[in-house]
Amino acid sequence: MSKKVYRFGGGSADGNARMKDLLGGKGANLAEMSAAGLPVPPGFTISTEVCREVLAEGSAGGTGRGTGKVPDWLWAEVDPALAHIESLMDAKLGDPSRPLLVSVRSGAAVSMPGMMDTVLNLGMSDEVAAGLAKLTQSERFAWDAYRRFLEMFANVVMGVSRAPFEHAMETLKHERGARSDRDLDAAALKELVKRFKEVYQKQTGHGFPTDPRAQLERAIVAVFASWNSDRAAKYREVQNIRGLIGTAVNVQAMVFGNMGETSGTGVCFTRNPSSGDKELYGEYLVDAQGEDVVAGTRTPEPISTLKERMPEIYDQLAGLTEKLEGHFKNVQDIEFTVQQNRLFILQTRHGKRTGRAAVKIAVDLVNEGLATKEEAICNLVEPTHLDQLLHPYFADETGYRKAGRVLAKGLAASPGAAVGRLVFHAEDAEAWKERGEKVVLARVETSPEDVAGMHAAEGILTSRGGMTSHAAVVARGWGKPCVAGCHEIYIDYAAKTLRADSTTLKEGDYISLNGTTGEVISGAEKLTDALVSDDFRHFMTWVDAARILRVRTNADTPRDAEVARAFGAEGIGLCRTEHMFFHEDRILAMRQMILADDQRGKRAALDKLLPYQREDFAGIFRAMNGLPVTIRLLDPPLHEFLPEEHKQQEELAYEMQISVERLRSRISALHEQNPMLGHRGCRLGITHPEITEMQARAILEAACDVKKEGVTVLPEIMVPLVGTVAELAHQKKIVLAIAEKVFKEKGDSIPFLVGTMIEVPRAALLADDIAEEAQFFSFGTNDLTQLTLGFSRDDVGSFLPKYVAGGIYADDPFKTLDTAGVGMLVRWASDRGRAKRKDLKLGICGEHGGDPRSVAFCAEVGLDYVSCSPYRVPIARLAAAQAALRARGVKEKAGES
Amino acid sequence: MSKKVYRFGGGSADGNARMKDLLGGKGANLAEMSAAGLPVPPGFTISTEVCREVLAEGSAGGTGRGTGKVPDWLWAEVDPALAHIESLMDAKLGDPSRPLLVSVRSGAAVSMPGMMDTVLNLGMSDEVAAGLAKLTQSERFAWDAYRRFLEMFANVVMGVSRAPFEHAMETLKHERGARSDRDLDAAALKELVKRFKEVYQKQTGHGFPTDPRAQLERAIVAVFASWNSDRAAKYREVQNIRGLIGTAVNVQAMVFGNMGETSGTGVCFTRNPSSGDKELYGEYLVDAQGEDVVAGTRTPEPISTLKERMPEIYDQLAGLTEKLEGHFKNVQDIEFTVQQNRLFILQTRHGKRTGRAAVKIAVDLVNEGLATKEEAICNLVEPTHLDQLLHPYFADETGYRKAGRVLAKGLAASPGAAVGRLVFHAEDAEAWKERGEKVVLARVETSPEDVAGMHAAEGILTSRGGMTSHAAVVARGWGKPCVAGCHEIYIDYAAKTLRADSTTLKEGDYISLNGTTGEVISGAEKLTDALVSDDFRHFMTWVDAARILRVRTNADTPRDAEVARAFGAEGIGLCRTEHMFFHEDRILAMRQMILADDQRGKRAALDKLLPYQREDFAGIFRAMNGLPVTIRLLDPPLHEFLPEEHKQQEELAYEMQISVERLRSRISALHEQNPMLGHRGCRLGITHPEITEMQARAILEAACDVKKEGVTVLPEIMVPLVGTVAELAHQKKIVLAIAEKVFKEKGDSIPFLVGTMIEVPRAALLADDIAEEAQFFSFGTNDLTQLTLGFSRDDVGSFLPKYVAGGIYADDPFKTLDTAGVGMLVRWASDRGRAKRKDLKLGICGEHGGDPRSVAFCAEVGLDYVSCSPYRVPIARLAAAQAALRARGVKEKAGES
Repeated sequence: MSKKVYRFGGGSADGNARMKDLLGGKGANLAEMSAAGLPVPPGFTISTEVCREVLAEGSAGGTGRGTGKVPDWLWAEVDPALAHIESLMDAKLGDPSRPLLVSVRSGAAVSMPGMMDTVLNLGMSDEVAAGLAKLTQSERFAWDAYRRFLEMFANVVMGVSRAPFEHAMETLKHERGARSDRDLDAAALKELVKRFKEVYQKQTGHGFPTDPRAQLERAIVAVFASWNSDRAAKYREVQNIRGLIGTAVNVQAMVFGNMGETSGTGVCFTRNPSSGDKELYGEYLVDAQGEDVVAGTRTPEPISTLKERMPEIYDQLAGLTEKLEGHFKNVQDIEFTVQQNRLFILQTRHGKRTGRAAVKIAVDLVNEGLATKEEAICNLVEPTHLDQLLHPYFADETGYRKAGRVLAKGLAASPGAAVGRLVFHAEDAEAWKERGEKVVLARVETSPEDVAGMHAAEGILTSRGGMTSHAAVVARGWGKPCVAGCHEIYIDYAAKTLRADSTTLKEGDYISLNGTTGEVISGAEKLTDALVSDDFRHFMTWVDAARILRVRTNADTPRDAEVARAFGAEGIGLCRTEHMFFHEDRILAMRQMILADDQRGKRAALDKLLPYQREDFAGIFRAMNGLPVTIRLLDPPLHEFLPEEHKQQEELAYEMQISVERLRSRISALHEQNPMLGHRGCRLGITHPEITEMQARAILEAACDVKKEGVTVLPEIMVPLVGTVAELAHQKKIVLAIAEKVFKEKGDSIPFLVGTMIEVPRAALLADDIAEEAQFFSFGTNDLTQLTLGFSRDDVGSFLPKYVAGGIYADDPFKTLDTAGVGMLVRWASDRGRAKRKDLKLGICGEHGGDPRSVAFCAEVGLDYVSCSPYRVPIARLAAAQAALRARGVKEKAGES
Repeated sequence: MSKKVYRFGGGSADGNARMKDLLGGKGANLAEMSAAGLPVPPGFTISTEVCREVLAEGSAGGTGRGTGKVPDWLWAEVDPALAHIESLMDAKLGDPSRPLLVSVRSGAAVSMPGMMDTVLNLGMSDEVAAGLAKLTQSERFAWDAYRRFLEMFANVVMGVSRAPFEHAMETLKHERGARSDRDLDAAALKELVKRFKEVYQKQTGHGFPTDPRAQLERAIVAVFASWNSDRAAKYREVQNIRGLIGTAVNVQAMVFGNMGETSGTGVCFTRNPSSGDKELYGEYLVDAQGEDVVAGTRTPEPISTLKERMPEIYDQLAGLTEKLEGHFKNVQDIEFTVQQNRLFILQTRHGKRTGRAAVKIAVDLVNEGLATKEEAICNLVEPTHLDQLLHPYFADETGYRKAGRVLAKGLAASPGAAVGRLVFHAEDAEAWKERGEKVVLARVETSPEDVAGMHAAEGILTSRGGMTSHAAVVARGWGKPCVAGCHEIYIDYAAKTLRADSTTLKEGDYISLNGTTGEVISGAEKLTDALVSDDFRHFMTWVDAARILRVRTNADTPRDAEVARAFGAEGIGLCRTEHMFFHEDRILAMRQMILADDQRGKRAALDKLLPYQREDFAGIFRAMNGLPVTIRLLDPPLHEFLPEEHKQQEELAYEMQISVERLRSRISALHEQNPMLGHRGCRLGITHPEITEMQARAILEAACDVKKEGVTVLPEIMVPLVGTVAELAHQKKIVLAIAEKVFKEKGDSIPFLVGTMIEVPRAALLADDIAEEAQFFSFGTNDLTQLTLGFSRDDVGSFLPKYVAGGIYADDPFKTLDTAGVGMLVRWASDRGRAKRKDLKLGICGEHGGDPRSVAFCAEVGLDYVSCSPYRVPIARLAAAQAALRARGVKEKAGES
């Protein structure tokens, strides 16, 4: 180990941004900023190698924190570095007349936010506090900073619980009749400091160290030791952070914006984070510290006021912001403080922005020559930005939602935001809508009978059901916000109330749903509309040029297909035929088919359904003219088509002229313990070949019909839930036989493919067998995840959140593909399938097709396409482009100081 | 191709038993029998190579069957072979004075029963029929044989439908006022022959060929062609029969037992197939053909009558039977015919026998020096024999069940047979039993409340639920017959009736259940009791010496454990802790735990359960002194413990002093769409760590307690439903922490293992990760099958039977392990697990652990043990021994001629 301490500040630095391993992320960035001439408060970084040495030597102490020593060989470098800070700040640690206070912070090579320790305002003592009071002309500020330091030092460095300090605080407040901390004046805070020192003595067994060098020693050792704290070790385990030596320690001068009229503090963005416009955007507060802004006790002024008050400082800041943007090739969010006419940059990081701003900024930075198109794609727009762009969202003018009270959280079943008055019945939703009211429909579950009311509502909330429940599927198809399976709420249809925790909302109350996060909010949030701009269209042309993976959509209707095509879908990867049967005019025929006693009855009912299906397919083929359309044969268990409620059963029995008992006995016979693993998918087509026959006929007749209109049709017929090649062969034989008949009847023919979903683990394992019959595989990663992990998507609510929170799974495997497990099967099946059949087409049609990280995995495995719901198509396009560019080596330029 | 035709008969043969590939199984056996001096009717076999030639040359015709020609090069060998038969039989094809009739049969190297064609009585014409009538002194017999030949020849050889023949038959019967075929006299049959010939002319366009050589030519070609029939090709595909050239054709003299008093026909076993006693056992019918015996028109006499009538023939037969037993090293079932004082052996095959007989015969044959112990294990006792031996079964004196009317078929959920009077409520079962009645309890489903009534019943029948339903699991534990999930029956509790198809049984009616086959039979079948004989014990010592694989049992109670140990279990492979909670005195505490609002309430309830669990474990440890006991932590979803019926809910709410609404709302919140994939297994232990703590404590405290009594305890704690190693690590940490505490408290310690079930595909895929934490794997192949195939075991009834019948799966994958799919995962996980941890213990605890073919697979993969229900332990021991011996090359000696 050679150099141990790296200085920065005053326009130069010992380190640079590439030295993250040695200086940690924070230390490396501070060095880089300082060397680039940015006025960061001066300081020094003790390297990560020292962490290892100190921990190995046991200097950091065993059980008790802060009891260890800084070894002499380290002091030998720390002392001169400290002197360097003092010289640059024209201040001195422990000197009441010109006091220097420092922060002591951790910083590893990989960011571990909040996991390790930080000490602020180090260097305080009675004398220094008095001096600081004089300089800031605020006794209250000085003693408040002091009492905070005492508590922080005791807690972080000495491991003392915060409870006795809080108790002392509460006691004092009670004595002074103060209702909040703010009500305590300077004298009271001075008294509090006294009592805190007594607490310290009592808890640690010795007096508070007023010697600032002793404070520093203990703080350095404590921060190093926090590397091995339980929570930090756990965090590294969960986040799979390996191979690091330890944390660095950053000691940096504290600066004060509250030293009179020539001081102040502010935050600014290099561009408007809401609109993306190129303008310095931010706020400034004279004679104040950052806490004042956060606490909301004083209202900051627009950044333009700084221009009037201190034009040189403003110009310096404006110059710096341009420099920073150029440096990071990204919009920066900058915290700064002015201390007695001297500007300090405290922190700069990539600025958060709205989706609209992200796209505009990306296009502008490229046009201004600040970033390449590739950098814009990889670093300036995130997939979530597009999500925001394409749906209404809750936002204040800075682009962040200021939430009302979040009542409950359910599944984020369909993205976007909705505000409306609460109704509980589909008919009410329609009636209120006709009166001109916007409504949100809340149901325990929805069923096909609710569809008109669902359509009338701005958003849909259910207390039961998962991501594939009726409500969720229908809402996603319409791009309508939906929060599903919100177990925390209790709906009382009779009373027309919704209860969550201790709050009860009644019919007509305003409610807001965030379908992107799953939040249910009481009251009416402010809504910002979706906007597809020219910038967006422009940006997406770059995206499309960069990607290799194709993007299709999951669409079941001509309308969905049109929407998706407008969003750039290059075909349909999953057309679910069952939703077609739920329409009011078809469900009866479907039910007749299911309940028929014999082949004749079944076929008669199917004959009624044939023209409907044919018409639907024709519409979809027209919308997708020239693009492939993958149609999945009937998949869900038949009982899903039968009514559950008694009244509806009675109506159906009447319509079908059978007894209610008979109907109920049939429904009961179809009941399944685990419908997910039941009589569905190709199992239906095998036990009811006449269904496959009807569907194949509808597809191929429609294809022949629209071909006559000049439409180019590329149907891909997909057999669901195949587990063994014999199932696929069975269904394929039927399809081919029907094709021969239909083509003969029509005197024409259409090229088409027959393939399968790979969604049963067995099919993935034996993919080479399956590929003997399949012309394409579409990975149905929803079901494949359910089966590989043994998770029912509808039922995971009771434990999966805890699993993710506890790090048992890093992500919700239904949102982001479990690459280690499910991904192993996808890769295995792709390799074995292609080994058997070279031109095997490979795609994915689960919800993962719209998840950026999962899309990146699909690109890596070499799939031909992903398929996702229409509103996620642009996101998948971007994720595919990012994956392709990153594979080609385009890297993100991180920025934080 | 050299020799084409292989002769046999007259005490010599061209071929032998090793020439199956060339002569087919039947031809090779006929040759072997003949060469060994057995008096089989003479004949010849045309080799399988000729089949290929004939089919390749197209001689067998294209679409129309029987239109092809026998090529000259084949006639060149067939003609002399035919002459050889004529000489041996002193008869001639087509000669009315001494007519020879022949059969023409297929026979491939692998048996394909019923898949290919057969023609009998070939050589018939008007003149031959008249001659035969004279010889047999039965006009009726001759014309009946003739009309049968006409129909068979037309159908099999010419491909004519049977319908017009049946129509002609029905018309004639109507004309003659005959109610059955038997009512037609010789004259009528003669008329029928005339009409059949007209049908033949009309259907084929030409006259029936009276030339016997022309008949022979067409029959040979047709039998060859049947090799490529659709059904034969399909059968080979399903059975995975590959690499065969074709079928051989066997032409053999027909012999007649109805040529007067010196003729007759009979069947005999070399030993008594019911008791196993060494005695010639069988029946004989003078002046009769085999059909007469089958048709039941005449009652055969015991074989001893033959001794009186024809002592030389009897002695010849007795001598032959001994020779055959020695040859095949197995009991033979022999069909023979005496034609005018000349004995012919028509067929000999391994005799079917009862379980009791099988074991006795095996022991006797070894003692007599006729078979080695290894041969006895591999060839003389089948696993199903032991099943029969250990349970009561339905049987007549020959060991085969003569079924009453089978009303319906459900799942064979627990083997054995039961007869009793039908009751529908658990209380009724108890009440009737007290009155001394034997009852069968029929329920839609059973629940823990029904346990006493289930215990009182002889057998249990349910109309819903699968192999793992409450009824099935409880019944198997008790070794009590159970037919579960019998969807075909409809139970009406109110009316106390059971309806199946058109039959309605009411309370008190007799009903018989066959839990081994799943059959539900109306009326009282005759029941044979189980019997564990000395022969059985003796035989099992040989079995145990031969096997490598260990056999454990699935047992949840001390009693089950004792039963299993008596059956030879070498430990417990699966002790399910949940069934312990269902006991009346524990279920309330369990429910309190589930419904508790806070940790305190939960722990209080668990504290009540702790002593019960500890006591159960102590009992099981005592029963398994010195043997390992694998205990699975709580597995089922919590809602299984809560009452479903309203009345019970009200009672529970009262007991718990909460409102019924509150209780129902809690129960409803626990409801799951797919409980199989829900909040269960280790997911419970992770969200409710206090349950794992209680169970670990109960296990380890019990272990310490019984150790003091001198019992050797080897507990293996098994974490269920693990999908990722983090889950196992989480639970293991809890177990180890509790162990430390308990051992400290007890001042003692116990060696124990912590491992996991491999039942989630992800865990199998990532077995190397899992093995980092697991000391053993137990393959839970029930759930692993459910998840790998996507089949809910409770719901497969609606399609799986069709799948198996249609050959989509060769076997029910819940009975016999799907080695291609699930087996791939077992092998993969075993290999990867052992690669990571050399001493990883591997076992299987699904139902497959008791299935002979699955046990053979486990032996092949190299697992350490299988575990199965107590009553299947002997079966698994035998299967393990057979697998070990077969791996060492002990082969079965097939026998059939």
